[in-house]
Amino acid sequence: MVFDVAIIGGGPAGYTAAELAGKAGLKTVLFEKRSLGGVCLNEGCIPTKTLLYSAKTYDNALHASKYAVSAENVAYDLPKIISRKTKVVRKLVLGIKAKLTAAGVTMVTGEAVIADKNTVKCGEETYQCKNMLICTGSETFIPPIPGVDKVTYWTHREALECKERPESLCIIGGGVIGMEFASFFNSLGTKVTVVEMMPEILNGIDKELSGMLRQEYAKRGVTFMLSAKVTALDEKDGKVCVSYECDGQNEQLTADKLLLSVGRRPSVNGCGLETLGLQTNERRCITVDGHMMSSVEGVYVCGDLNGHSMLAHTAVREAEVAVHHILGKEDSMSYDAIPGIVYTNPEIASVGMTEESAAAAGISCKVLKLPMAYSGRFVAENEGVNGVCKLVLDETGRVRGAHLLGNPASEIITLAGMAIELGLTAEQWGKVVFPHPTVCEIFREAIS
Amino acid sequence: MVFDVAIIGGGPAGYTAAELAGKAGLKTVLFEKRSLGGVCLNEGCIPTKTLLYSAKTYDNALHASKYAVSAENVAYDLPKIISRKTKVVRKLVLGIKAKLTAAGVTMVTGEAVIADKNTVKCGEETYQCKNMLICTGSETFIPPIPGVDKVTYWTHREALECKERPESLCIIGGGVIGMEFASFFNSLGTKVTVVEMMPEILNGIDKELSGMLRQEYAKRGVTFMLSAKVTALDEKDGKVCVSYECDGQNEQLTADKLLLSVGRRPSVNGCGLETLGLQTNERRCITVDGHMMSSVEGVYVCGDLNGHSMLAHTAVREAEVAVHHILGKEDSMSYDAIPGIVYTNPEIASVGMTEESAAAAGISCKVLKLPMAYSGRFVAENEGVNGVCKLVLDETGRVRGAHLLGNPASEIITLAGMAIELGLTAEQWGKVVFPHPTVCEIFREAIS
Repeated sequence: MVFDVAIIGGGPAGYTAAELAGKAGLKTVLFEKRSLGGVCLNEGCIPTKTLLYSAKTYDNALHASKYAVSAENVAYDLPKIISRKTKVVRKLVLGIKAKLTAAGVTMVTGEAVIADKNTVKCGEETYQCKNMLICTGSETFIPPIPGVDKVTYWTHREALECKERPESLCIIGGGVIGMEFASFFNSLGTKVTVVEMMPEILNGIDKELSGMLRQEYAKRGVTFMLSAKVTALDEKDGKVCVSYECDGQNEQLTADKLLLSVGRRPSVNGCGLETLGLQTNERRCITVDGHMMSSVEGVYVCGDLNGHSMLAHTAVREAEVAVHHILGKEDSMSYDAIPGIVYTNPEIASVGMTEESAAAAGISCKVLKLPMAYSGRFVAENEGVNGVCKLVLDETGRVRGAHLLGNPASEIITLAGMAIELGLTAEQWGKVVFPHPTVCEIFREAIS
Repeated sequence: MVFDVAIIGGGPAGYTAAELAGKAGLKTVLFEKRSLGGVCLNEGCIPTKTLLYSAKTYDNALHASKYAVSAENVAYDLPKIISRKTKVVRKLVLGIKAKLTAAGVTMVTGEAVIADKNTVKCGEETYQCKNMLICTGSETFIPPIPGVDKVTYWTHREALECKERPESLCIIGGGVIGMEFASFFNSLGTKVTVVEMMPEILNGIDKELSGMLRQEYAKRGVTFMLSAKVTALDEKDGKVCVSYECDGQNEQLTADKLLLSVGRRPSVNGCGLETLGLQTNERRCITVDGHMMSSVEGVYVCGDLNGHSMLAHTAVREAEVAVHHILGKEDSMSYDAIPGIVYTNPEIASVGMTEESAAAAGISCKVLKLPMAYSGRFVAENEGVNGVCKLVLDETGRVRGAHLLGNPASEIITLAGMAIELGLTAEQWGKVVFPHPTVCEIFREAIS
């Protein structure tokens, strides 16, 4: 049998593409060497969110008096938090499996190796395909710091399985993953230190919001070492010693555990990708066109692997675009309105241009800025908490970016995403009726 | 001095219009007899949300073990909940006052009486105006039930000041206000009975969702008497006796307190409205055109008073439309995508057509329905809780309605509102990137 499409990698891009292709009647085979759902579902987005929600529940109970509610002996059970996480993941993996089964997708567990653009081998079997969609994702980048091979460290994977709270934790890398774990372990009572090479955490996010979030966590006891370059790692008396350079000074700190979260790199090895000779760009990422097709006809590359964006929802959309192209359905990928979320508490959510990126692109913009306290509901549900809404408009009044600090930023940012993607001006957007009282009303407050 | 616009009523319509007019340079006077913010801010939307958030905090602490968190002796302090509510309201009223001051609006506290379309009297003073915007809002409708004048009852106003939990509470009227108070007092531990004349609570909301919500509250101990017509009210031994007819049977129940929430009626009395001779429609509501202008040139009627919708956010948008018309700026009112929210826990949010209303209008629609558990974040944050997302599409694939049961429905419903207002098809909407993992992704799951 010749498959219409062979999909390599069962993460968000892979399972989305497989379901869509299967439902559209394409003969579809999906290869996954570990667990369906990929890093995102098994050891990324979803597991961190279950942990963070337990931490939020704990924090809310601890601070319930803000809302005239009292509770005594508030405690958490870390092994149970971890086992609940595992249960949630299992449920969702089964959900994906059920959807793919319903869509008639052939699922193969094992490491796929590309023989040529129409042939995939897995174990003893050989699969023929007309189209190929490669979405092998990415893996944690382990920086070549002297001593890194001699110390015990966590990546997000081990951190998610931690059943005993460390007294102290050093996190190298203050990006999204680093900050979400900083938030989680800080809530548990761990002494957290974040070491970040850049002058501010959350590189790429609006600087003002990142700074506000950092100050909030500093108040809660997290220590931040900014513009700090780690120079060596060592282990002494069961603790890890982190040497770093900051302001020309050599410093050192010790911690019970070490988490490395400096970034992720596309997974290019092991699947025979090199046999295809796909064109790459100057960043050594595989080049794709607006339909996610590589330089080889019929070979599509979606998700982290193509280097456009390391986000599950980008991968999902790219997968749709690729399958639509196979189906001959008009569609193309747009990266104008990809939201980015930091699931700290409060959350940061961001979409489109920042002041910084607009300036860098030479686009003249104005920024509308409002404290979240302009939303009555925010005031009702966020006692003693600050937040900010920033909108970036270009000279024609079009919405080009939105940046929020304050819950539930993650759930409302797509309102701005829609405005950006559809090319609305602030005036056009303002004609939409936002329900009262809601936090999302802050957008209409900002533009009115 | 002749004002460009005189605004009667300082609720959401009034304060929105005043700020916008003032900022645009119009000489603006605003009359409010009680407190700026109107019913919505002082004794409606906002105060109920602060109470409900305290109740949610209490419920979450009580049931924290679902997320592996424990707490003992969880309790609430009702007088403190009420005083926090008062503090939140005060803060927001001051916020509005500050905005109006900044916009150069003349604020007059007192009962305004319309002398003619260009003259308003308040106390000893007379004010001349070129345009008039009337937004006196609505008041609680007290149904003429035999005995209603002999018993002590609450409206939402008294319920919001309740400093001692009643053992039992009978709520007549299972609409939005009734259900929000049922939710609040049920959380506090009060034995709540809801008596509703219609066969289902929440008239106008998607019947399936209303039924699911009712069943959820029934599980938590709320009693519902549906298709029940109250025939008499009486007081005995400090308790209120409610007689009602149900299935042809005469029944009676007693409760410590009684809340009347059968509806609200436009406030037409006392402000001299009758002197203007405005045209009314068959429902005896004042007729307005697409610019919110009444049958008398220069007299605009916004908010509850015009009978279009009894929602603060409708009033806000109408006020903008009216002021834009005064300013000669193109704009007109659309009622296609007005969200409606029930702030129970879980929330219901709804926008556009239901299956029922589409059928009634003779519009052939198909419904896409998905359990909220298709959202990974919903699963992560809603242990043991069900929810539903329903989308109503017409034959051309255009999004015509959306109905959600599940938190945070209130904050994400406007994504569907935007799709409806902008006339998007499901396919067009599906090209928007929704961040992962979020609850709002449920929309793209439903349409993909």
